[in-house]
Amino acid sequence: MTMEAFGEEFGEESSRWDLPEGLSDGTEPGWLSDGELAETRGRVPMLYVEALPVRVEPDGRVASVGLLLRGSSTTSLITRSLVSGRVLHGERIRDALMRHLEKDLGPTAFPVLPQSIVPAAVAEYFPWPDRLHDPRQHAVAMAFVVPVSGECQPRQDALEISWLTPQEAAADGIAADMEGGRGALLRQLLHHAGAL
Amino acid sequence: MTMEAFGEEFGEESSRWDLPEGLSDGTEPGWLSDGELAETRGRVPMLYVEALPVRVEPDGRVASVGLLLRGSSTTSLITRSLVSGRVLHGERIRDALMRHLEKDLGPTAFPVLPQSIVPAAVAEYFPWPDRLHDPRQHAVAMAFVVPVSGECQPRQDALEISWLTPQEAAADGIAADMEGGRGALLRQLLHHAGAL
Amino acid sequence: MTMEAFGEEFGEESSRWDLPEGLSDGTEPGWLSDGELAETRGRVPMLYVEALPVRVEPDGRVASVGLLLRGSSTTSLITRSLVSGRVLHGERIRDALMRHLEKDLGPTAFPVLPQSIVPAAVAEYFPWPDRLHDPRQHAVAMAFVVPVSGECQPRQDALEISWLTPQEAAADGIAADMEGGRGALLRQLLHHAGAL
Amino acid sequence: MTMEAFGEEFGEESSRWDLPEGLSDGTEPGWLSDGELAETRGRVPMLYVEALPVRVEPDGRVASVGLLLRGSSTTSLITRSLVSGRVLHGERIRDALMRHLEKDLGPTAFPVLPQSIVPAAVAEYFPWPDRLHDPRQHAVAMAFVVPVSGECQPRQDALEISWLTPQEAAADGIAADMEGGRGALLRQLLHHAGAL
Repeated sequence: MTMEAFGEEFGEESSRWDLPEGLSDGTEPGWLSDGELAETRGRVPMLYVEALPVRVEPDGRVASVGLLLRGSSTTSLITRSLVSGRVLHGERIRDALMRHLEKDLGPTAFPVLPQSIVPAAVAEYFPWPDRLHDPRQHAVAMAFVVPVSGECQPRQDALEISWLTPQEAAADGIAADMEGGRGALLRQLLHHAGAL
Repeated sequence: MTMEAFGEEFGEESSRWDLPEGLSDGTEPGWLSDGELAETRGRVPMLYVEALPVRVEPDGRVASVGLLLRGSSTTSLITRSLVSGRVLHGERIRDALMRHLEKDLGPTAFPVLPQSIVPAAVAEYFPWPDRLHDPRQHAVAMAFVVPVSGECQPRQDALEISWLTPQEAAADGIAADMEGGRGALLRQLLHHAGAL
Repeated sequence: MTMEAFGEEFGEESSRWDLPEGLSDGTEPGWLSDGELAETRGRVPMLYVEALPVRVEPDGRVASVGLLLRGSSTTSLITRSLVSGRVLHGERIRDALMRHLEKDLGPTAFPVLPQSIVPAAVAEYFPWPDRLHDPRQHAVAMAFVVPVSGECQPRQDALEISWLTPQEAAADGIAADMEGGRGALLRQLLHHAGAL
Repeated sequence: MTMEAFGEEFGEESSRWDLPEGLSDGTEPGWLSDGELAETRGRVPMLYVEALPVRVEPDGRVASVGLLLRGSSTTSLITRSLVSGRVLHGERIRDALMRHLEKDLGPTAFPVLPQSIVPAAVAEYFPWPDRLHDPRQHAVAMAFVVPVSGECQPRQDALEISWLTPQEAAADGIAADMEGGRGALLRQLLHHAGAL
């Protein structure tokens, strides 16, 4: 996978569609201009949340796993990803998680957020080659497994959501398709949930 | 609190009402006669599950905590407790958890079971005085925080369920009322859920 | 793998060598005769602890993973396993963990026990075919990752300990060699430790 | 507690003493000028690590808890705190944890870092009054319980380390003395470690 394949999409917000209604880009607290964002990314690790949407049986067992298919704006490649996005200044982790779940899965997914904000896994992305990689920045993501009970309707740049069994999702072919090395993170989350 | 105050109630099943319908006591796998149960309790640690029922906000935060009020059959004392009960031979932990939640909270509580069976806390009860105490046995309980979305209607020996804020539930007076030293376990579960 | 291949070895204590010095078999609390043990196994789930010994870097990262090679007493097969054994009546989980680590790794392994007894994984073994399998019993094991800083000298039925990188240990060939389906548990523990 | 009481000390690095040897302030990657730091704090949540140093028994149980006493540079108040500090750009979480443990406890503390970087607790500090508070910034701290086996010799602004039993550390008087509301975090960490 080349850097271009997932350079633009790694959970970053596009101000065109992600802003709360009625707010202009310039005045929204927490939102940064492109220049400010680039500058900040060179200074500190950026805090992200990521979520693996799952469907569960009545007894809590994970029945299936939702992976997002995203197209790259610079290449023709399609990659698989998790729900992910940045935590804004002043934003609580659970609010960021809820916001990105709604952004990526639509308003009728009905995610069931965890009681605790201690994540299932912590993912460290570096701008240089490493276990996990993000060409744009040093990002630290707190990753959660989130059951959804409703209908998922991916929006915007998330082309589609595909549902796989945990075993299918953990297969080598799927892992290799995931952007930034997230195959390892996906397996870690599946094991955390006792789904493998 | 005297030992008699909670001797009979610690999550033990009464064969009168807890058996799946249509099965006679003598043939149910996993169920033991009083003599067999007493003998087994002298030989090995007994495996239990416990659950703290909670109501959560849409963002996952714990809003309130359900504590069971149980009356003792040998004394007039009322004590507070968690949902709890034994894991039967051949029974999965999540099935035991579901069975005891339904037994103690009724069929319309709609508990949301955890994906993982790694517990929020592990509680060790000894028949001699210790941090946690059960006069009948050495019991090891895997304890979970379980959101409920429906109506809780305690059955049988569970007289009532009272809902408290996490702060109220963690107060010293409540902790002292809990059977077997479970006040410490309750606080541990509340901290695990980030509710304090 | 046939059932015979791991029937006798699954972490069970042999009274010949496992008893604390100076105590005779008949009087040791918690120890059961063969008949009592067989009877009890038919009545309740048996509580076990399991441990994956690891060597760690100064920064905490898992450098290598110790797997036990055990020979079967009834077949010529060699299987790989974890440190494991039963929790006795009246015994604390951390005492059981310490006892079995010393039994399987010798007195100079210097294991570093976890602060919390909440396990890294919970393993359910059933006497019928399932994800994890133990032909003798329904066993529930609380599994931990335990760093060791000293010299491991396996004793008795544990023929040898072999040290692998986390990646080697997670490979399909190793997983298939592990008794009772513990390949899945091993990977779960490695992911819990962030070692993959 | 007033804001001034802990305004300067919250785990922030002083460039005078915290820089790796042989590196000048201006060229050290990850280090920011005062102006850059102030600007960045207004844009994004700042990532921190925190650690509760503990002494453990051979069986892993927490025997005592180390709290730092820090003096304020603007007031005469002394407050209690945890080991804490910022994660720099490009720095791994475990490297940041190691660096701040050495900074606050000295070079002979011999901390035993966790295998996993999933924290024991996640602490969200806001610049406005909240459960946890930091007047300078929105900070998100990943908090760990870290056993130390050596001699702790606090350096620089950390005046002293005092060792308390877990019960003493959890007492109301101690909690009220902790900066930024960390009394709640301290109890959460003690419960995570099963020390209460």
